Formats: sequence, C-alpha cells, structure tokens
Amino acid sequence: MNRLLQDLRIVEFSAFVAAPLGGMTMAQFGAEVIRIDPIGGAIDYNRWPVTDTGASLYWAGLNKAKRSAALALDKPEGRELARAIATAPGPGAGIVLTNLPPLRGLDYASLKAERDDVIQLRLIGNRDGTAAVDYTVNAASGFPLVTGNSGAGPGAPVNHVLPAWDIAAGLYLATALLAAERHRSRTGAGQEVIAALSDVMLATMGNLGYVGDVQINGRARPAIGNDLYGSFGRDFATADGRRVIIIALTPRQWRAIGTATGLTDKLALVGQMMEVDLDTETGRYEAKDAIAALLARWCAARNLAEIAAAFAGSGVLWGPFQDFVGLVRDDPRCSPQNPLFAEVEQPGIGRYPMPGLPLDFSASPREPTPPAPRLGEHTDQVLSEVLGLSTAEIGRLHDAGIAAGL
Amino acid sequence: MNRLLQDLRIVEFSAFVAAPLGGMTMAQFGAEVIRIDPIGGAIDYNRWPVTDTGASLYWAGLNKAKRSAALALDKPEGRELARAIATAPGPGAGIVLTNLPPLRGLDYASLKAERDDVIQLRLIGNRDGTAAVDYTVNAASGFPLVTGNSGAGPGAPVNHVLPAWDIAAGLYLATALLAAERHRSRTGAGQEVIAALSDVMLATMGNLGYVGDVQINGRARPAIGNDLYGSFGRDFATADGRRVIIIALTPRQWRAIGTATGLTDKLALVGQMMEVDLDTETGRYEAKDAIAALLARWCAARNLAEIAAAFAGSGVLWGPFQDFVGLVRDDPRCSPQNPLFAEVEQPGIGRYPMPGLPLDFSASPREPTPPAPRLGEHTDQVLSEVLGLSTAEIGRLHDAGIAAGL
Repeated sequence: MNRLLQDLRIVEFSAFVAAPLGGMTMAQFGAEVIRIDPIGGAIDYNRWPVTDTGASLYWAGLNKAKRSAALALDKPEGRELARAIATAPGPGAGIVLTNLPPLRGLDYASLKAERDDVIQLRLIGNRDGTAAVDYTVNAASGFPLVTGNSGAGPGAPVNHVLPAWDIAAGLYLATALLAAERHRSRTGAGQEVIAALSDVMLATMGNLGYVGDVQINGRARPAIGNDLYGSFGRDFATADGRRVIIIALTPRQWRAIGTATGLTDKLALVGQMMEVDLDTETGRYEAKDAIAALLARWCAARNLAEIAAAFAGSGVLWGPFQDFVGLVRDDPRCSPQNPLFAEVEQPGIGRYPMPGLPLDFSASPREPTPPAPRLGEHTDQVLSEVLGLSTAEIGRLHDAGIAAGL
Repeated sequence: MNRLLQDLRIVEFSAFVAAPLGGMTMAQFGAEVIRIDPIGGAIDYNRWPVTDTGASLYWAGLNKAKRSAALALDKPEGRELARAIATAPGPGAGIVLTNLPPLRGLDYASLKAERDDVIQLRLIGNRDGTAAVDYTVNAASGFPLVTGNSGAGPGAPVNHVLPAWDIAAGLYLATALLAAERHRSRTGAGQEVIAALSDVMLATMGNLGYVGDVQINGRARPAIGNDLYGSFGRDFATADGRRVIIIALTPRQWRAIGTATGLTDKLALVGQMMEVDLDTETGRYEAKDAIAALLARWCAARNLAEIAAAFAGSGVLWGPFQDFVGLVRDDPRCSPQNPLFAEVEQPGIGRYPMPGLPLDFSASPREPTPPAPRLGEHTDQVLSEVLGLSTAEIGRLHDAGIAAGL
C-alpha cells in the first residue's frame, strides 16, 4: 500500500468481489475504508477458498487493509449508526461504496438528507434493477461459446474462472470514486454513481470491437481454441509434458521465433506455400496451422528447460503454462522476492504473502499491506473515533445487540 | 461520456489494449486525451476485428473520444514536438500514459527535465523489464489449467478470450492517474507510476485467495468445468438446444430454484441423501451433482422460453448463454435502448452503437461519445492549440515529413 489517499474515508456495504475490490484498492492507496457488516458477517464471509478451520482466504484477500465494524443492520438503531458513520463530517469523508440492495435509511436520498455532499457509488446487476452476477453476465457476453473450442465450431459453453467482469467493475468503481471526489473537492457537490455489472460487460464488448464486428460486418469471431485472433499465437506441448504459448504480434517477435528455433528458412517456405506475407499479422493468422506444424515439432522435441534456454534473450514472446501450485511455489514473481508481496500475519489464518497495489508510485513509497480485519475488530474504535461515542454508550450498544466486536 | 475531468489533458503513447483503455476511460470522463502515434500508425492500427476494407473496429473501440496526432517519432524533431506536447503548461496538463518502451527524449527523466511536475504512468510486462502480454501472463496464472475441464483432472490449457488482464491493467492505470493527479494538485509534485502487467495478475491471484490456498492449505482448486467453486452453479441444456446457467449463492436464491421449478421436495431429498445442509454454500457444493441431476432433467424438458417464463420474477439467479451475434442483434441491453450506447458515425467504418462509460453520474449527465479520430486528424490542431505553432511552421513540419494529417 501507499499513502496517496490517506485523507479519504470510504464506508463500504458490500459482499463478494467487485465492491470489496474497489474498496480494497482505495485502502491500498491509504484511504480509511470502513467495511460495515451485519453482526455475524455478510454473505461472503465464509466464501471459498477457506482454510481447514473454515476461515475465508477469499474474504481476507479482498478486505485487507480495511477496518471492520459489525452492526445490527436489521435494526433501526444499527442502521442509524451506520448512516451516521457514512455521513460523518470531514472533507475526505462521506463516501459510500456498495453493491448491496440499499437498506432502509442507507439509500442515497437518506444519506444525502444527512450530508448534502455525500457521494454514493453503487454497483447493481442490470440497469433495470434485475439481478446479474459475473456468471450470468459472462453467459450473455458470448465469450463462453468461443472459449476452449477448436475450429470445428461451437460446442458447449466454457466459462472463464477468473471473475473478470467483477474485477473490471471493482476497478471502474475505484476510478469513479476518485472522479466523483475530485468533482466534490472542486464544486462542493456530491452525487450518486451507479454502475451496472452488465454495462461493464457491454461497454467492454463495444470497446474491443465485438459489437461493431456484428453490426458492420455481420459476423463474429469464431471459436479458435487458444489461437490468437488475427495474429499468430498458439500453445504447444513440450517433450517433458509441459505446455508453452508462443506469440508473434510484431515483425520483430516473428523474426525472433525463426532465429531462436533455427526455423527461419522453413518458416519462409510457409510464406511461399501459403502465399502470404508473414511479416503481417493477417498473413501469420492465415498461415497459422502451417506455422504451428513446424513449431509443434520443434517444441515436442525439447524439454521446457531447453526451450527456455533457446528463447532466453531472443526476443521471442512466449511463456510456460503453470498451475496454481506452480505459480505460488515456483514462480519467484509470486513471492516476497517481488516487492509487490509481503509476508502478512493474517489473524485466524496464518502467515503468507499478500499483494499490495500492482502500481509503484515514485512519490509515495510502498508500505507493507495490513491484514484483513477480523469481523468487528474496529467496531468500538469507529464508534468512538468517527461518532465520538463514550465507552459507556458503546457498552450499551453491545449489551443491546446493536454493535458487536471480536 | 461526461465532463467530470474536462480540465485534464493526457498525452498517450500506446498500443493494443491496456494503455489505450486507460486513456479512453479518461476521454470518456471528458479529459482531452491526445494519442500521439508514429506517421502511418502504431502497431495496433490495423488490429482485428477489421472491416472488409481493413479499418480496425478494435482500434476505433479503444480510441474513441481521443484526439490523434501523427508525428515522426523516429526523428529527433518529431520526438521534440511530442515532448513539448506532453509537457506543455497548464494545471491539468503534463500527464503521460504509455505502454511502449520509452523513446529517446520521451522517458520520464527527459519529460521531468522539461516539466518538473510531470506525471508519467507506464505499463510494462514484467517488473524486471522482460516482455509479458495478456497471453503469457494468463498462462502463468494457473487459470487456463482449470478452465473448461471437467472434474476428470487437468487437461490441455484453455485460455480465456477476453483480454482480462489487459482490461484490469487499463483500469488500474486510470485509477492511478487520478490518484497521482490528486497528489499533484495538493502538493505540486509529479511522479512516475509503473505498473507491471504480471503484477496485475499476481495481485489479483492474491486478492482472490489463490495464493493463500496454496501457501496455507497446500492445495489449489481443481478444474470443475463450469461449476462454481464452493457454491452451486452449473450450465444446463434446454429442449431447444440452448444452454442456461443456474446459480444459488444465497439461501434465498436457493429456495427460489425449488419454488420456480416445483422441485422443492425432491431437492430436500438431495439434502437428506447427501447428508448436507443445502441452505449453506458448502452443502450445495458438496451435493452439486445430485442437485444438477434434477435440474438437468427439468431444463432438458423445456424450451428456453418456458424456462424464462418459469424463472421470471422468481428470484432465481440464472441466464441464457448467447453468442456474439445473439448479444448484438437480440439483446436489448446491447443497443441504443440502453443509455450506455449511442449510434456513432465512425469515419471509415460506418454507423453503429458505441458504448460510453459503464457509470452513471447523477451530477454529470451522459453525453454522446465522439467517434475515434482518424489517424492524424488533430495533428495540426494540437500543434496550433497546445504548442502555439503558426500555420507556416505547421506547413513546414508537414513538408519535412515530421507531422502528418489525414
């Protein structure tokens, strides 16, 4: 984390990936992010992957560096406290981030009645208010029907495993938060910002040219397995049972493949045979199967280590496939050797490398990321520091079941 | 687009997805984004999908609402002009976004020598400076080895088609830009911000709990096809050859499935049979195959329209799979019926719906998104408006092959 946004306070009512990621990104910028959960935790509190004792590694990952307050959000007094925290004074406070249906008293109008310049950012499923999650949005996108199938035509849909739409949505929320806060700091005006997860998908489809392809060309890209569309890229098996991806986006990367493999002359024959200019992406895409025939044989005759040695420093754009265990155990980038990571002692879980922001700011040095809070860890601090409640009053709230600590 | 950031000017040296998306996001917020390309265009200028005349729908999608200046970046005078544009005075100017190797005179130190408070955001492949692109980063992530395979174990890798890491990186850059600009507006200090694409992947792996799963539990999630990990969700075939995904993340969504399908009693028997509590995500994950057996038969006996009717208003979390053509032609969300889209006349391509930002700001109304520029469309305007060059001087630059227009 760094300290770039340390004067901001964000109050988060959230679950699952997108809004927690948006808030966690702000926390990694040093903002005070208070996640307010119902007593006992929100619906994502035990989400997989979990440890053998049931602690959620997922929740820890998406909530690190935040503060946690647990309040009885099912009771008017709990919601009143939550509203008071969300709308507490201060130039960097009064920012609310949520992806949950608004509770009574915590909708934008109620928050604005309390603090006129409040900013609320809300992620919804579809624009019309109906439900949508990463899985349903992805099904609608068209991607699953061109994922993992060979050129033989569309088969059964294949979903991505990375919750990509949620991640994009969370980062759009972070950008929107800063844009809205910038506007408020210059004009004094707060606002409500609404993002629909399905719009995140739809905007991306348009941005990448898929909407235009159907509208203008009347066609859509086919399923082509792991091949790159409109360029050269494919995965190959090695002699030792690994797989690698080899790509040529640029003429330089293309020539490097020939040089590093010693196949320059044979690849030139491919160009003659297929009557295409292999220095163009379109030409390489047209000739991809012939190119791949040569590279498949070359890779199949070599171990991964031999391929890595042949490609080292050659300018070939390539990489090995590895599984999650290989990534975490064997890839030095996924370890504290990489300044992105630091060993963090996560209460209830143990010590393991946690990432900071994937951004290095020369004017704001990287600091160790704090762990995720335990549920309710900061309830009393927040009630005291933000609302100025007395120890006696906080005690009463605990006794009444309105507030909960550890 | 909106006008929230209309006082900012960003100068972009970029190609492909991530940096262009970061810049385009800023342009959609009303910032003046000047993409400076070499004369003839950068390496992504003809990227697929393209029209029958070779115009890139991809480039149009990722560069809309920007201005385009074409300069001879291979010549010192062209680079000097580019540096002057990038470092021109103004409180909202002096922000540079790039994912290209820095050209001589356009590295951070050179820019800073010209304008001390310049902000440069740079996306690189790996932190050590070696190349990495979405495809190689994805291969390293572990996701392709758990995508698209059934429980029978890992097979060949299946890459995602959505360039998800590039999209995340582009949105991280947008967030970082606003954080760095906020810092500059408060302290006067610019800075260099560096993001490695592989760090974007690695941070995400940590955020989602995958790093902890291996480090703490010594295991990793298996390949489970389209099933949701740790919850219930699976795709099913319909009687008319379509497929749907049905999900239950919450107890309410779970009960809705039983009610809407009339299978409540039979699903209760699944719980008894498997000895699990189907009101928990873990219980539903444990019993997923038995649950799916009932739902598969139910779906296979019904057309998509019948399923849609049964689920309408029921609270069931579900959605049909559709292909790109279905998305664009039949889904009203992907049309100007959705305020996200507006018909745009894109020069050289034609008229089609282009998306704006997937964010609605109550204090800053949505305006139509301008099309992408033609290459060099704004060269003369930029030289005149930003650098104050005379018509005669601009003419000389054209004659000398230093600047190019349409």
